[in-house]
Amino acid sequence: MIAADERAFFDRCLELADRAGRLTAPNPRVGAVVVRDGEIVGEGWHRRAGEAHAEAVALDAAGEAARGATLFCSLEPCAHHGRTPPCTDRIIAAGVRRVVCGLVDPDPRVRGAGLEALAAAGIEVDLVEGDDAQRAERVIEDYLVHRREGRAFAVLKVAATLDGRIADRERRSRWITGAAARAHGRRLRERYGAIVVGTGTVLADDPLLLPPSGAGEPGSPFLRCVLDAALRTPSTARLLAEKVAGSPVIVFTAPGADVQRRRLLERAGAEIVSLGPPGGPIPPADVLRELGRRGVLGAIVEGGGRTHGRFVAAGAFDKILWYAHPSILGDPEAVASVRIGRVPLERATRLTIAGLERLEDDLLLTLYPA
Amino acid sequence: MIAADERAFFDRCLELADRAGRLTAPNPRVGAVVVRDGEIVGEGWHRRAGEAHAEAVALDAAGEAARGATLFCSLEPCAHHGRTPPCTDRIIAAGVRRVVCGLVDPDPRVRGAGLEALAAAGIEVDLVEGDDAQRAERVIEDYLVHRREGRAFAVLKVAATLDGRIADRERRSRWITGAAARAHGRRLRERYGAIVVGTGTVLADDPLLLPPSGAGEPGSPFLRCVLDAALRTPSTARLLAEKVAGSPVIVFTAPGADVQRRRLLERAGAEIVSLGPPGGPIPPADVLRELGRRGVLGAIVEGGGRTHGRFVAAGAFDKILWYAHPSILGDPEAVASVRIGRVPLERATRLTIAGLERLEDDLLLTLYPA
Repeated sequence: MIAADERAFFDRCLELADRAGRLTAPNPRVGAVVVRDGEIVGEGWHRRAGEAHAEAVALDAAGEAARGATLFCSLEPCAHHGRTPPCTDRIIAAGVRRVVCGLVDPDPRVRGAGLEALAAAGIEVDLVEGDDAQRAERVIEDYLVHRREGRAFAVLKVAATLDGRIADRERRSRWITGAAARAHGRRLRERYGAIVVGTGTVLADDPLLLPPSGAGEPGSPFLRCVLDAALRTPSTARLLAEKVAGSPVIVFTAPGADVQRRRLLERAGAEIVSLGPPGGPIPPADVLRELGRRGVLGAIVEGGGRTHGRFVAAGAFDKILWYAHPSILGDPEAVASVRIGRVPLERATRLTIAGLERLEDDLLLTLYPA
Repeated sequence: MIAADERAFFDRCLELADRAGRLTAPNPRVGAVVVRDGEIVGEGWHRRAGEAHAEAVALDAAGEAARGATLFCSLEPCAHHGRTPPCTDRIIAAGVRRVVCGLVDPDPRVRGAGLEALAAAGIEVDLVEGDDAQRAERVIEDYLVHRREGRAFAVLKVAATLDGRIADRERRSRWITGAAARAHGRRLRERYGAIVVGTGTVLADDPLLLPPSGAGEPGSPFLRCVLDAALRTPSTARLLAEKVAGSPVIVFTAPGADVQRRRLLERAGAEIVSLGPPGGPIPPADVLRELGRRGVLGAIVEGGGRTHGRFVAAGAFDKILWYAHPSILGDPEAVASVRIGRVPLERATRLTIAGLERLEDDLLLTLYPA
């Protein structure tokens, strides 16, 4: 459905879409390109919820040149009134001749209605297929899971030595990986709407867990989450002590956790959410469901080993970003990257390598469940 | 010293050299190409000690076309009588006009004498530089270490899950990696003259440790070595029970090991070599020196974790081939890939990634000490 010489335009859509981060939530990342006589005459992407959609940005840029042109867009244009008017109306009004689109939007308010509206207006509509469609899916994999399953997409982030250690036996982990890998890892906090760590990480590292931009924003907060069945998080943790607007702290705990400790943490600014059976453990899938309910498309699970272990053992992850540093620790008592318990070889969690990237001296493996 | 359009000929030399395996030992792998008017008119490589050198094979193939031609060779031609006559005489007699050569041979019987003899005969001699020279070194890195330090080059081979486990807690390791990675690993036994494992591996896996071709040969044996300070290797191990000519078994032990056990193993066909302090541990560097003394250019150290740990902790390795399977075991009691003891983060063994290859689902990292 897409000619070989059109692929570059479609790729450009995906590239533009991919520039957007968590601020589009609950909307997806979308990119659009207007092409006339083999030339790009307008392009754009959706930057944040409430602002113009990609199609509108690209059509604005194209102006009159959009008449008779082809519009490439990474996702089906919306046909409903949200915070902005339907893109289909805008496309029809602009006089676009043909629309090449990456995916049907699974959102129940769209789900093919956009393409139908365009076709009904006499616009030629092409849906890409195969590998093109798969690449379009990857760009909004978090959105797709959120819309289909109503939960946050979970990205496990691991930074380990070759022998799989994320810290030495004194729990020192600064730094396993180099500057480029660490910066890459922090940029994930601009892409996903939440970060999840275990109490062990808070106790050992006392991290702030903020995005590189400093904080979330009131309209699209960055949720900092701690899994803490026994409420061991100190109310003096930097996470709570240094108040950051737009980056609220949620402490997930088990029902029946100590009321005193709960009140202390609430007074320190945390929201306490109880999930799962009394006494724990907190079910990872419930955490993802709760985050999804709050409009988070994707969450970074940033360990340590026990937290990773819980998500892996429960199969409650969609993607793993494994930052490997070419070093060997060799200490059997050092902190393991993923800690589950007794696992026989045949029950190992099998993954496939979808991406392989060098980040200075380090290696980044992008993995999906096999 | 090498023109850009000549690089392909030099690369071809390296490619030819690299076809040779352990049978050239104690000679290096060498490849040669005869080029006339921009065309290859003859090529060859040294296949095994005692047989024709690469230069002779290439010149034989070129015949009269060698007159006035350029000879590319990955290593300096020899100028001494060994089991075959000096290559320099052959090159001069063939009427070669110019020789482009990868490296000066560090063997004390050559060390520049070959290039001098050629120059003295009026042949133009070019030595490659920079990256070309480095690639030529890599092809014979084992030979270079053997000639310079008199010891075997040590290649650690590790096959592990992403979280660095080489077997589950029941010591089951069949199979961590896939068929392509395993075949690749076994082919190393055609490249290097010895394999070294710990007793733990013999006790757990009872392996034969043979090369894919089945066995070594009397003239160039494949040495199967077990590090066994306490002589725990059973005399009934397959390694000993199934006699394979050309693949002798050496059990390295510590002085003062039990005489009865020693005799039992000797009767079963093993050679016992005592190294290091009484009671152990066996110093890895001494093992490499002993293998070097026996003409082994390179040895594969194939673990398990404790054996890898000893070589890594002693810095007694030159290269690591790390086969990573994209899976996670997550069992803190599973067998660790490298087991040293207490190691603080700042004393981790740092490596650089020189190569990165996909072998079906698996990943092969080629690493050198940083």
